[in-house]
Amino acid sequence: MVDAASPFETVMRPGLPPPAAGRWSGFPAHNFVGGHNAPEALLPDTLMQALKTAIDREGLDLATYNLRSGPQGYEPLRAFVTGHLAKVAGMRVTADELLVTSGSLQGMDLINAALLQPGDTVLIEEVNYGGVLTRLARLGVEAVPVRVDGSGMCMASLGTELEKLSARGVQPKYIYTIPTVQNPSATVLSEARRREMLALAKQYQTVIFEDDCYADLVFAETRPPAIHALDDDGRVVYLGSFSKSIAPALRVGYVAAPWPLLSQLIALKTDAGTGALEQLMLAEYCPRHFENHIANLLPILKGKLAVLTSALEEHFGTAAEFAEPEGGIFLWVKLPEAVDTTVLAKAGEGIGISVNPGREWSVASDAGQFIRICYANPDHETIRSGVAGLADVCFETFGVPKRGGNVERFAGAQ
Amino acid sequence: MVDAASPFETVMRPGLPPPAAGRWSGFPAHNFVGGHNAPEALLPDTLMQALKTAIDREGLDLATYNLRSGPQGYEPLRAFVTGHLAKVAGMRVTADELLVTSGSLQGMDLINAALLQPGDTVLIEEVNYGGVLTRLARLGVEAVPVRVDGSGMCMASLGTELEKLSARGVQPKYIYTIPTVQNPSATVLSEARRREMLALAKQYQTVIFEDDCYADLVFAETRPPAIHALDDDGRVVYLGSFSKSIAPALRVGYVAAPWPLLSQLIALKTDAGTGALEQLMLAEYCPRHFENHIANLLPILKGKLAVLTSALEEHFGTAAEFAEPEGGIFLWVKLPEAVDTTVLAKAGEGIGISVNPGREWSVASDAGQFIRICYANPDHETIRSGVAGLADVCFETFGVPKRGGNVERFAGAQ
Repeated sequence: MVDAASPFETVMRPGLPPPAAGRWSGFPAHNFVGGHNAPEALLPDTLMQALKTAIDREGLDLATYNLRSGPQGYEPLRAFVTGHLAKVAGMRVTADELLVTSGSLQGMDLINAALLQPGDTVLIEEVNYGGVLTRLARLGVEAVPVRVDGSGMCMASLGTELEKLSARGVQPKYIYTIPTVQNPSATVLSEARRREMLALAKQYQTVIFEDDCYADLVFAETRPPAIHALDDDGRVVYLGSFSKSIAPALRVGYVAAPWPLLSQLIALKTDAGTGALEQLMLAEYCPRHFENHIANLLPILKGKLAVLTSALEEHFGTAAEFAEPEGGIFLWVKLPEAVDTTVLAKAGEGIGISVNPGREWSVASDAGQFIRICYANPDHETIRSGVAGLADVCFETFGVPKRGGNVERFAGAQ
Repeated sequence: MVDAASPFETVMRPGLPPPAAGRWSGFPAHNFVGGHNAPEALLPDTLMQALKTAIDREGLDLATYNLRSGPQGYEPLRAFVTGHLAKVAGMRVTADELLVTSGSLQGMDLINAALLQPGDTVLIEEVNYGGVLTRLARLGVEAVPVRVDGSGMCMASLGTELEKLSARGVQPKYIYTIPTVQNPSATVLSEARRREMLALAKQYQTVIFEDDCYADLVFAETRPPAIHALDDDGRVVYLGSFSKSIAPALRVGYVAAPWPLLSQLIALKTDAGTGALEQLMLAEYCPRHFENHIANLLPILKGKLAVLTSALEEHFGTAAEFAEPEGGIFLWVKLPEAVDTTVLAKAGEGIGISVNPGREWSVASDAGQFIRICYANPDHETIRSGVAGLADVCFETFGVPKRGGNVERFAGAQ
């Protein structure tokens, strides 16, 4: 009605990102995008019982901002996080060094707000979370890509890029890394590389932004110590999340940072606190149930991954290449040169199959051959039929995969 | 430990706001600051029962971002808000025109991010929410103050300021107003003034940012229609909240805006959604209980206000001047010229009595004579003893209040 000539058009700030395209129209039938989790692993009754216990005890504190814990977040939740990080990641942080955020993405936005301005330079893994690429572009920040191999970020490449920046007189603001279940490569960076990264950061006088939001989903029994745990001079800001471990709809993340940075993040967090119910629930649930929950979740994820890789083998054959993920909820798949995955993703969308095209998740030269498939949320049958449908539409559009059961089935249907 | 020479100091963005001063040390014994609510009005069991009903029905949706409602927020909550705004504020908005936010403050930050850049100009009520003054200063935006009288923003003053800006060739980005229970004057703008404001906005080709976060707390039986309801060309962005009505710790607010603006706000909201538990709870609780809750809350607030004003009369006598609030949770009190309330607030803090000094809440020339007293959270006895203590420290520091029971009591204690 008012869209034609809105008075707001004359007062809008210039240079805004593209607006939302339209009203949300629901999830696609085959939804392989977004960090949704496995509903089978959720225990709503146990979560609710935990919240009820907390509310019975201190429900009237909902009448105060931040309960009675101040702007850094609900103190018992911070206490759990410190213990958890010590146990699984070797980190020594106190509750005073933590800020609870509304999801790790708010933490990321706060860290960027504290450190970055247009014209700045940072280093990132060349394959990366799409939200990082769009955020840095919006901020007018140059993101220098660092090579990623089957073991995560390559330190030789990092050293080369840091040296090139140094030669140009550029002081990089940070090295951004997802070291533990890298997004989208699903690699885990070795302890040796973590130590090298710290040494390089020190040598080139920059800091490390360690995004560990998938770290609780490592398939192996143990995980390397966090880079933050290996750091001895306060050079690392650490970001964690409950979205990938417990539930994404809860919107609870946390930042561990030295006080000079943390005190800025607190000042920049102008939302008057993160949701109390989520914090109360997690603080009560996690000390007793977090480990069991993860122990229950990981086999579910591995089972879905097995269904996915077997479906890819069945329907794409050798046309789909991928490394076995070391954890997490997504698979990074390379398709033949003939395929443009931006076109493929668009075609998939048309028939209710959503995947992330590589160009949204990578700045490498072969980005257009990749897709990211998130497998945690759909059930086994949806994974199977989604992959079959994607193979069909890929063949229709690009003539590949050329061999294997898929082609025969497809040809037989003609 | 690392505070002395943090590596982060070399990578910090210039021009940041002051960092958090230190670790939070708890609420003062007499806490008259912050928009905390009355715990007596909270019904934790009923709220929990509502959440349980919602979780029993759709708890597994917690495994997906945004439940199944997309980035604008949980659809049943938006449905309640549309009905509520129609009933109490005469607004005609659909769920598609609403964005649920993490408190109304996130909504404010999003609106500012969409509209403002350094050097811009806006118009505001000269007495105002302190967070508005600090936000606009941080953004490098000129805030032109408009006079406020016992009936809210003065339209003559608004017209004069708009004309002056027009003469200077300045296009103001918006008129910001808290029309219904203005903060801190606790006035309610009449429908006639609302219509005048709209006419002026149209005449000078600007828009109105209507912050109605206290509007559910009007003491009278009815309230005027929202400015948004009187608008016929999509010139108003409307901000609401559940913090002041249900509970501030929940962090749920909402924005109603024409699509050209709303689509930008959605794109700028990069936190991947507002907490699901809060939205589920409110969507289930409010349709059945919201009206009763408010009917229960208002007498509690009025009772506390009566205790406050009677304590002020007892301990400050004629030295404390104030208008009877038309709703809400705060009283705006004028003290004699001899008093500098910035100094008074500091002295009060030293003995555990917190009030907002006028200079944080006003840019008027007499700001230093005012204090804002939030009365919703403390109990009756705490209100009484806090006012008595404040009168003592005021007399010690400034020699006023000179007459009345307080002085006699104080002198007797020497």
